[in-house]
Amino acid sequence: MKSIKVVPSERLEIIGIDELPEIKEGDDLAHLFLDALEAKNVKLEDGDAIVITSKIISKSEGRVVDLSDVRASSEAERIAREMEKDPKIVQIILDEAKEIVRMANKHIIVETKHGFVCANAGVDQSNVEEGKAVLLPEDPQKSAYTLKKEIEARSGKEVSVLISDSFGRAFRDGVTGICIGVSGIPALLDRIGEEDRFGRISRITKEAVADEICAAANLVMGEFRESIPITIVRGLALERCEGEIQELLFKREDDLFR
Amino acid sequence: MKSIKVVPSERLEIIGIDELPEIKEGDDLAHLFLDALEAKNVKLEDGDAIVITSKIISKSEGRVVDLSDVRASSEAERIAREMEKDPKIVQIILDEAKEIVRMANKHIIVETKHGFVCANAGVDQSNVEEGKAVLLPEDPQKSAYTLKKEIEARSGKEVSVLISDSFGRAFRDGVTGICIGVSGIPALLDRIGEEDRFGRISRITKEAVADEICAAANLVMGEFRESIPITIVRGLALERCEGEIQELLFKREDDLFR
Repeated sequence: MKSIKVVPSERLEIIGIDELPEIKEGDDLAHLFLDALEAKNVKLEDGDAIVITSKIISKSEGRVVDLSDVRASSEAERIAREMEKDPKIVQIILDEAKEIVRMANKHIIVETKHGFVCANAGVDQSNVEEGKAVLLPEDPQKSAYTLKKEIEARSGKEVSVLISDSFGRAFRDGVTGICIGVSGIPALLDRIGEEDRFGRISRITKEAVADEICAAANLVMGEFRESIPITIVRGLALERCEGEIQELLFKREDDLFR
Repeated sequence: MKSIKVVPSERLEIIGIDELPEIKEGDDLAHLFLDALEAKNVKLEDGDAIVITSKIISKSEGRVVDLSDVRASSEAERIAREMEKDPKIVQIILDEAKEIVRMANKHIIVETKHGFVCANAGVDQSNVEEGKAVLLPEDPQKSAYTLKKEIEARSGKEVSVLISDSFGRAFRDGVTGICIGVSGIPALLDRIGEEDRFGRISRITKEAVADEICAAANLVMGEFRESIPITIVRGLALERCEGEIQELLFKREDDLFR
């Protein structure tokens, strides 16, 4: 994580991009996105942050499981009884998890293989055909990097790409948009060393800008129907850099709640 | 919490309002805000969500403590030694807390008297004179309600008011903008019963829109220097209602992490 000087932007615009077809495995998302932009008569600009819901990344990457192909283990069967879930879904959750963080009140909170702590390992049965479940992308950081390169190569604009999902939180009800992969801007903004209004030096403030950008985008994307799977956040004054989602994940010894 | 039908907005605008003076106890924030709007030549519109950082609410309400007036108890002294903090600051944190949730790695996470789980009970020494500390507003839900009424009465526009702060999160590094008081729109959007793309009925998705709005505003307000203490989020398609921050706080039996 670098310490980055930032002039706050005074004005942002958040533009929802609908007009995308239902996404299938192998679809070229960069191409479909640029087509949808053209259909909406929106021109990409340098500095645009493109927020893409993980659901369509997963679908394009074939991260969809047919439940009829899943065999639930006895452990999955046991957990499914306790948590009142489908044993096959529990099996998929266990396959995606590095570790179970908490099980209670019919919720299964895990750490995924990527290191994200979330309900059901992000396995989701909404907005997919009956009998199927969508997993999180296998390597969303890499997906963001690849998509950014492709969009930049074809558009000639310098952009950033963020892959978003909706996670619940400890201590606060409801889900919010969060980031699971980011390329082109920092995930975490380190304001350590900046001066405040009274000339005092900040010692601790790190701002999770990638999560805030995905939360902002979620206001437009809508949580459920997902008719707007891509959003452009325009006007951010962030320094360009590789971007690395790991910045948002605690080292185990820094995690106060495990 | 009501179940609310929402047509997602396709486009949002986030407008930072600087041009406010340093806020003192007794200042009329509605008046100063409307003056700042005029200075920036921004016209308020029906449906605008006005996000105000808790810091200036606290300052206007006199929620600023002079450390020379604080006497640290022996408990505060003990915790201060362990957590390497100023005993007077620890005393203020204890006074603001209903309960200590976690103490480790020099962090004191508490539940405030309002019910918010956050570091240091929201007590903050940045952007205030040396030797002073700013507390969270005593009743931010009421502050939001009052300010909304005043802004509506003077502007003739139907708006909503959200009071924001920056909290850290369990399991993810960095702070994000969150809401501690909301009037005019729902805090939590209940999408239970809505149909997905495949006609399936949503069973569980509740979206913390008030937190997402404050996260979006934080991208403009900047975390540290706070030269932009108020932000307008324009274009939200949310049903008007009283608004109640308690919707975002778990009942104790629903809280998986305590």
